[in-house]
Amino acid sequence: MTLHDVVDALNAHQRFLVTTHQNPDGDAVGSLLAMAHLLRAELDKYVVAVLPDPVAKRYRFLPGLNTLVLPRIAGKQGPFDALVTLDVSSPTRIGGVNDLIKPGMTRINIDHHVTNPRSDDVCWVNTEASATSEMVVDIYRELGAIPTPDVATALYTGILTDTGQFAFPSTTAKTLHAAAELVEQGAAHEQVALETYRKTEAKNVRALGQVISRMQLFDDDSFAISWVSHDELDVDHEGFVNTMLDIDTVEIAALIRPLDSGQWKLSMRSAGMVDVAELAKNVAGGGHPLAAGGTLKAADINSALASVTEMCLKALTSARG
Amino acid sequence: MTLHDVVDALNAHQRFLVTTHQNPDGDAVGSLLAMAHLLRAELDKYVVAVLPDPVAKRYRFLPGLNTLVLPRIAGKQGPFDALVTLDVSSPTRIGGVNDLIKPGMTRINIDHHVTNPRSDDVCWVNTEASATSEMVVDIYRELGAIPTPDVATALYTGILTDTGQFAFPSTTAKTLHAAAELVEQGAAHEQVALETYRKTEAKNVRALGQVISRMQLFDDDSFAISWVSHDELDVDHEGFVNTMLDIDTVEIAALIRPLDSGQWKLSMRSAGMVDVAELAKNVAGGGHPLAAGGTLKAADINSALASVTEMCLKALTSARG
Repeated sequence: MTLHDVVDALNAHQRFLVTTHQNPDGDAVGSLLAMAHLLRAELDKYVVAVLPDPVAKRYRFLPGLNTLVLPRIAGKQGPFDALVTLDVSSPTRIGGVNDLIKPGMTRINIDHHVTNPRSDDVCWVNTEASATSEMVVDIYRELGAIPTPDVATALYTGILTDTGQFAFPSTTAKTLHAAAELVEQGAAHEQVALETYRKTEAKNVRALGQVISRMQLFDDDSFAISWVSHDELDVDHEGFVNTMLDIDTVEIAALIRPLDSGQWKLSMRSAGMVDVAELAKNVAGGGHPLAAGGTLKAADINSALASVTEMCLKALTSARG
Repeated sequence: MTLHDVVDALNAHQRFLVTTHQNPDGDAVGSLLAMAHLLRAELDKYVVAVLPDPVAKRYRFLPGLNTLVLPRIAGKQGPFDALVTLDVSSPTRIGGVNDLIKPGMTRINIDHHVTNPRSDDVCWVNTEASATSEMVVDIYRELGAIPTPDVATALYTGILTDTGQFAFPSTTAKTLHAAAELVEQGAAHEQVALETYRKTEAKNVRALGQVISRMQLFDDDSFAISWVSHDELDVDHEGFVNTMLDIDTVEIAALIRPLDSGQWKLSMRSAGMVDVAELAKNVAGGGHPLAAGGTLKAADINSALASVTEMCLKALTSARG
């Protein structure tokens, strides 16, 4: 199924529930805002846009966020004859929005994830798109609709964050042309980059300093490991493991943080030599070859560090043959 | 003078010395490599491409770097009938290349800096361009030349680094369209982002951890200050002050590092409320409203920290009126 099937399905229905995945990221919120606007303002539909979870702080600058509701509110605003899910790679990923789906509603899915099972009534899954927001740009173009500056800002946010500032291999010439069009249409590109990639809280910067200070390097600096302490658990530690991977000699970076009762969460990143998704199987986890994680048991942080270090050094030795 | 005057001047000469500014950045090296290739391979000219200074480590991945020479070598390869300077905002910024300029050589300047005095024989200064590399893309297009993948990589590097990964206000729709074309032409965009914005040495990451750990916040976290120690002077501290400015409450970030004999170098960044170029006048320095620096005298790091803190807190109080 293609873009045209989705456009036909959008035209064919009147009362839309529009949503995205749990823990919504920039692409989820950006594509949701843009689709809700398209249906409401360009196609003159009744639209309720619902978020399964609240939006993370770094996306709160997005204009129009106050038009999104949580499932409890959306439930009172039905009935709906269609559900549009954006950036949702599996029907299980919409959390509390599932309870709002009634028999007879047409399910329309727009997504770019390779793992999408294409199980909805109408699906358009374009795995060549860098972001679902890039696909929504195509839908606007197909319908002859021009994004408002606010919508352009939302779509630019989706593309910028899903491509890691145009750095991931998923970035294509088409991605950059789409971004250029959005800037022409008034996307606040400077603000988007500042809010999503730079601004952070003091406690996050302080914790980064501590995590780096605790970093240990092994095996000619090819393995880096550090940990987040109990009193740093409220910080945004998302980028910390990548900071260790940025070291030019590092092949595997690992970050450990405490869970409850002797359990530890492990995040791993690989520069390419080792498939860390394979390694993650040893710790009841999984992921991608270059980014994976899992959970391990250990009496204290030192034994957690020791067992992860042993596992990773073995993998490096064996990868070198 | 315009693009056409530059193209005419390139066509009218045969033996070119091509250069860029001292301490060459990504745009300097990228535009230099692309112009040298254009003259040599597309216009069939004799070309010596000379760098006033060696290239920083993060740009050493650039293909074709071994075709660039230092002034000592270039001097033996003349005579030349034209000098092309790229990204050079003032004739004083080409260091040892000045000694190679002989009477009768036509000076051609291609640049995007607002401060350019336009004093060369032929100048094209486009202050709307995000990078000199973006202007070189225009020259290729004007001449009907298509960048090779290596040249596309060089030009993409220039644009990416001069726009802070497409984040600075100088980024326009034209910039992003140019980047898209370069990706179409084979620019190794993923590698460029990795080499220029991520890869770093272990010592730099360790020093960042130390500098953050020493960070002090004042005045409801609106002023952040830290310092680089004597044994960290060999690290690449370029981004450290920006990391402090990234804190959402910070209005001024300041970083001090030791010079010789009781002198200290101060770098300041502003989020907008205070003009730090004005502040820098107090410490024999200057710069831009949002990024400035200077030098101060102090007996030890603690008195240097104290005097900078006093100056910045006063400026914040007065800015708040």
